[in-house]
Amino acid sequence: MEFTTVGKSYKRKDAAAKVTGKAQYTRDIGRNNMLYAKVLRSTIAHGFVKSIDTAKAEALEGVVKVFTPDNLPCGNFPTAGHPYSLDPSHQDKADRKALTDKVRFYGDEVAAVVAVDELIAQKALKLITVEYEELPFYLDAEEALKDDAVEIHEGSKNITGHNSYTVGDVDINEAFEKSDYVFEEVLEVLPVQHCHMENHVAYAYTEGNGRLVVVTSTQIPHITRRILSQALDMPAGMIRVIKPIIGGGFGNKQDVCIEPLVAAMSLALGGRPVMYDMDREECMSCTRTRHGARFYMKTGVRKDGRFLARELTNYGNGGAYAAHGHSQVGKMGGNFYRTYPAELATKYEGYTAYTNCSVAAAMRAYGIPQITFAVESHVENIAKAMNMDPMKLREINMVTQGFKDKLSGITINTCELPEIVKTAKEYIHWDAKRAEYAHQTGDKRRGVGFALFSYPTATWPVALEIAGARMVMNQDGSVCLQMGATEIGQGAATVFSQMAAETVGIPYDMVHFEEFTDTDICPFDTGAYASRQTYVGGKAVKKAGLIIKDKVLDRASALLSLEKGDLDVKGGFIVRIDNGERVSSVEDIALDSYYNRHTADTIATDVTATVETNGIAFGGSAAEVEVDIRTGRVEILKLINIHDSGTIINPVLAEGQVHGGMSMSLGYALSEIMLYNPKNGAPRNNNLLDYKVPTLMDTPQLDVAFVEPYEPTGPYGNKALGEPPAITPAPAIRNAILQATGVEVNKLPMNPQGLFEHFSAAGLTEEV
Amino acid sequence: MEFTTVGKSYKRKDAAAKVTGKAQYTRDIGRNNMLYAKVLRSTIAHGFVKSIDTAKAEALEGVVKVFTPDNLPCGNFPTAGHPYSLDPSHQDKADRKALTDKVRFYGDEVAAVVAVDELIAQKALKLITVEYEELPFYLDAEEALKDDAVEIHEGSKNITGHNSYTVGDVDINEAFEKSDYVFEEVLEVLPVQHCHMENHVAYAYTEGNGRLVVVTSTQIPHITRRILSQALDMPAGMIRVIKPIIGGGFGNKQDVCIEPLVAAMSLALGGRPVMYDMDREECMSCTRTRHGARFYMKTGVRKDGRFLARELTNYGNGGAYAAHGHSQVGKMGGNFYRTYPAELATKYEGYTAYTNCSVAAAMRAYGIPQITFAVESHVENIAKAMNMDPMKLREINMVTQGFKDKLSGITINTCELPEIVKTAKEYIHWDAKRAEYAHQTGDKRRGVGFALFSYPTATWPVALEIAGARMVMNQDGSVCLQMGATEIGQGAATVFSQMAAETVGIPYDMVHFEEFTDTDICPFDTGAYASRQTYVGGKAVKKAGLIIKDKVLDRASALLSLEKGDLDVKGGFIVRIDNGERVSSVEDIALDSYYNRHTADTIATDVTATVETNGIAFGGSAAEVEVDIRTGRVEILKLINIHDSGTIINPVLAEGQVHGGMSMSLGYALSEIMLYNPKNGAPRNNNLLDYKVPTLMDTPQLDVAFVEPYEPTGPYGNKALGEPPAITPAPAIRNAILQATGVEVNKLPMNPQGLFEHFSAAGLTEEV
Repeated sequence: MEFTTVGKSYKRKDAAAKVTGKAQYTRDIGRNNMLYAKVLRSTIAHGFVKSIDTAKAEALEGVVKVFTPDNLPCGNFPTAGHPYSLDPSHQDKADRKALTDKVRFYGDEVAAVVAVDELIAQKALKLITVEYEELPFYLDAEEALKDDAVEIHEGSKNITGHNSYTVGDVDINEAFEKSDYVFEEVLEVLPVQHCHMENHVAYAYTEGNGRLVVVTSTQIPHITRRILSQALDMPAGMIRVIKPIIGGGFGNKQDVCIEPLVAAMSLALGGRPVMYDMDREECMSCTRTRHGARFYMKTGVRKDGRFLARELTNYGNGGAYAAHGHSQVGKMGGNFYRTYPAELATKYEGYTAYTNCSVAAAMRAYGIPQITFAVESHVENIAKAMNMDPMKLREINMVTQGFKDKLSGITINTCELPEIVKTAKEYIHWDAKRAEYAHQTGDKRRGVGFALFSYPTATWPVALEIAGARMVMNQDGSVCLQMGATEIGQGAATVFSQMAAETVGIPYDMVHFEEFTDTDICPFDTGAYASRQTYVGGKAVKKAGLIIKDKVLDRASALLSLEKGDLDVKGGFIVRIDNGERVSSVEDIALDSYYNRHTADTIATDVTATVETNGIAFGGSAAEVEVDIRTGRVEILKLINIHDSGTIINPVLAEGQVHGGMSMSLGYALSEIMLYNPKNGAPRNNNLLDYKVPTLMDTPQLDVAFVEPYEPTGPYGNKALGEPPAITPAPAIRNAILQATGVEVNKLPMNPQGLFEHFSAAGLTEEV
Repeated sequence: MEFTTVGKSYKRKDAAAKVTGKAQYTRDIGRNNMLYAKVLRSTIAHGFVKSIDTAKAEALEGVVKVFTPDNLPCGNFPTAGHPYSLDPSHQDKADRKALTDKVRFYGDEVAAVVAVDELIAQKALKLITVEYEELPFYLDAEEALKDDAVEIHEGSKNITGHNSYTVGDVDINEAFEKSDYVFEEVLEVLPVQHCHMENHVAYAYTEGNGRLVVVTSTQIPHITRRILSQALDMPAGMIRVIKPIIGGGFGNKQDVCIEPLVAAMSLALGGRPVMYDMDREECMSCTRTRHGARFYMKTGVRKDGRFLARELTNYGNGGAYAAHGHSQVGKMGGNFYRTYPAELATKYEGYTAYTNCSVAAAMRAYGIPQITFAVESHVENIAKAMNMDPMKLREINMVTQGFKDKLSGITINTCELPEIVKTAKEYIHWDAKRAEYAHQTGDKRRGVGFALFSYPTATWPVALEIAGARMVMNQDGSVCLQMGATEIGQGAATVFSQMAAETVGIPYDMVHFEEFTDTDICPFDTGAYASRQTYVGGKAVKKAGLIIKDKVLDRASALLSLEKGDLDVKGGFIVRIDNGERVSSVEDIALDSYYNRHTADTIATDVTATVETNGIAFGGSAAEVEVDIRTGRVEILKLINIHDSGTIINPVLAEGQVHGGMSMSLGYALSEIMLYNPKNGAPRNNNLLDYKVPTLMDTPQLDVAFVEPYEPTGPYGNKALGEPPAITPAPAIRNAILQATGVEVNKLPMNPQGLFEHFSAAGLTEEV
């Protein structure tokens, strides 16, 4: 496919604003007479508020109001950033209130102070006394699922989500019986946090007519509007949600965490503006995390390496509230089946449990980094046990183009996994290094490793996929583009602008993208998640762009008395198709559309695209590492991510996306973990000193390659790219460590302490 | 015509916001790190800046920059709020720059200081020294038009605008010869000011990508964008203009007064935000005024009272810059001919002159209060001279339904002048009072008077008439409505919402109108002026509403498996036309349009209406007064305005509009005048202490009546109402004074000093 603007590395639309400080974040655009809230958080992990005394806090000068569940009207609501379902059985669990007297994790919201400034609000918190009745608490999913466990949510049996299926014409047990080898093992990952730069921050106020306005740093403005409507029992049309420039989200802002609270407080205060700006400690342990999980994996293999039967039972630690637990367990199941389809049978049984940990929810790639760590480690362990080249074992079993997914009904149109494996092998000098590193001794040992993934674009057929785009041509022939799809730092504004320029036939600089997402203004779209926007939003842009171009050609044809079919729009000009001659400028056509006294008719459109396809993205990582047996430290010598995301809309931005994902997975592999005090469930490291997110100093050179098939279902041949980069670096590094040391590390993170324990158990530390 | 929502007195959309202080005006929504500007204004009325020394001002701590014409890049621009014309000969005069070294009135902008706060900027102004070279100055139009006058704008001969025509099959001189009587006299009106509550205020900044944002209290956001584009030589698409809630304009904000200045200064400062908030003194004498004019009136009359020949030569005082001078002189000419079409011939010769007064421009009713004072006084004087009932004289000569205007080509579809005259006579007990007050002596004398007017709706066929509306249905079945038509306090948001509710078939409360007019978001519309919005904007709302309703019915028909033709939308429900049965709610249809996984398609539209019709509005005022001969004070005993504006969309709002206009005309009649020092041209009373705008204490009971024909060219049968109320109270009062005293006062204002002089000249003061 020949493109003019798509596929080129245009500068980000927001680059200059961000580096010059002109970008306006939620906190930058307050309101006169703003009030500020702080939240009183529980100091137990599970139990009830027996009594609460707010009198002293209320008496503090500058305190406007102290809210408890008793005096803050707010109904139950779900927090997950999913489109609403018309089918009640598919609606999200509404297990939250703005404030609670049933405490479900250490840090749960039991009261809130609203004051004239944040310092006073903070002081007032200390004047509130709470008496608790404690219950047993659970930090582990399987503990919480035991029959005798106390229910964290009444009637739930502590199950947030459950998903199970069997695929295949053969019974799973029969399939295992037909296998030559059966491998079974347990793998585990622990919770980590997003660590976006801008914490959760939001404020709310009402307009004179009673309409509620909520300004918030969110990935999902339109969904937030709907959830607020539910929480506050207000018609959606009475609510307006505005997302300014945002400092990251990575899925943590795909939940409605603080908006109902600020909104309910503002409404209770007659619509006065109330802001709540979380601090880092709150944001890390009281918003959302990537869930930890334990995987019971079982694979039946034929002598030649073909997987005949695959079975997984999986227990996710969902934390204190449902959030995304029920949908992630399904997505993980679909991924388990799809990536390595077994010849005879696949069986999945997945649970997400309520526990008394921080709430787990969406984080970049939504459960797939977890299951991919488990699957890719397991595959590597099988190869080792069978003495096979793990790359070969993957090539025998991995999914291929044309595969028809029996769970989703999706047929895979494009799949470049063979090319990805080939590229990885060349990059890492696979055969030579595998041989070179086969037998090592000493305290520093090297290894190479690989891991691959598959990842759907957007959520179809699980959920609604819809996007809107409004395009208005200005007097100079440029267009304003408004979309409910959300720029959250990933470059959406830029790639949508490229798409618009491509389709209308104007230069990139002539597309002006509205970066504040305002639900009154930006056409409906469910938001930034599931790597959906370039795919679903792209279809809306394309639809709008084609209409705009058609209107331009209609006017040009009439104005110039030329056949419409003989004309095209290119580079901001009306050109003859036959000889490329420029017969008018788009600007002249636009001017006429505004100011012709008889035929003026602004060139504008407001359209929706509803999507019922999915294009599966693929990729893999190859790593070369050096492991220090004595210290458990790992040095990354080489690391590459190779992606099949169809057409790459903006190569430099795409590379940046991949770098970011790789960095996230590096932390997941080697250093990051949320720690809880086993005695009381309190977070131990909810700050950026003790929580070890990798810095620039911890980051090696990150290499990136793209394989670009043209995905026929994508608007410009494109598939998911936003989340996939965060999936495979961790298992690739893990597999490289396995080659280097012979030790099967089946648990994340592989930080020095963890590795040292593994090496000790394997007797390695005695060797050196 | 049967309406459900139109024609009812719904509460203003912005009522609660305004009375609770929640409404956000330009000054309320500043930006972090705002800089503030103050302007150095000339202390001569005409001349050149020979030298200017800004060094001391620049050295003051807190001063960021001192701008003069030399260091502030800005091209010439016009200021009039007219739509752009593709025909260069119809474009407005670009005779302004942001700052000037040629001074054209006392207070002209010669330099500007930008500082970190307004106090410092104000202090810095005092540190600037300017040396001027003075030229002769002119405060009177006819003085400025003399052959030997110095040109205020080079090459202009001090003519801003000129308009002339002759209508009729007979030569004008022949027509006068055929007349039984010829009446000639000179009438005069003097400049007054708008006195809107919120002064001119604007600020500008650039976004990171270089786009310019201007937030301003304006009636014409889209026109401001285009004029900024011209002044700054930037493509229109690179400019965004936002109008927040606004505290009045009355035409003064139909000019682009300060936006190029703040924009140019911000651009020169790298896009830092710069605000300029005028003080009252500046706003009164350095923005715009209602122009003064002298009218040389000549009328040939047949014995029976029929006007055979009418001739007017008119000199308007346009002040220092062109603004609207050229178009007002045309509008006045058209009005002169239309209201009393002469049987044989009408001749008009109108000039607007550049003078060294404050710049005259648009003010409510745009020249028509001036000419109507002259015409209605003249008609009254003729009746007196002919000893005819002036009401009878009007009935003989006034325009009637079906009249085809030879100047504009417009045919008058509806004209209720006869009913208006009848209503006025009944209200004021015309015949009885005329008799009762016929012969009075003593110091207090009473009289009744009447005056009538005609007034076009919008500007067609003189200028482009276009309006856009975007309507989006929310999940609850309510709609968001965005329009470039501007709410400026007149109630536009409310009446457009009523129209939308009417056409879609939902309750009024389910229409949410976007009150901030943002050129990136609100569809193109030329703005609030010419009483055009309910007429032109109404057509856009109707067009959009019909599309939305059609889409709702399409979905309902498909969802319910009912024939679309059998269904209607009423009160927020889908009803069967045959029996009125509610078969679904609009909310249910809306929800399905958002969340149906297969057919979701948001119900939205973005349309433009281009209008090539005009519906002429009519009306009149009747007054009863008591005049104190000794003091020149006038007490209004009764006053009514009677309007034929077609359908009244919201009676209470309409009545409010009429009250406001009557109040404005009361001031015009009895107290208001802009005074200039004849020695140096300095304004003498540019403040609300010395300039006598009527207060509540000066205002009598104001009565209002409507006659409501259904105007077939109006979207809901409606015609102009915004400006007309300000036209006839002044001449009606003047004519009542004539009846009371026998004195022909041919000049405004009729303040105590003015009347005393007239009464003295007539010998009345000696009698009492």
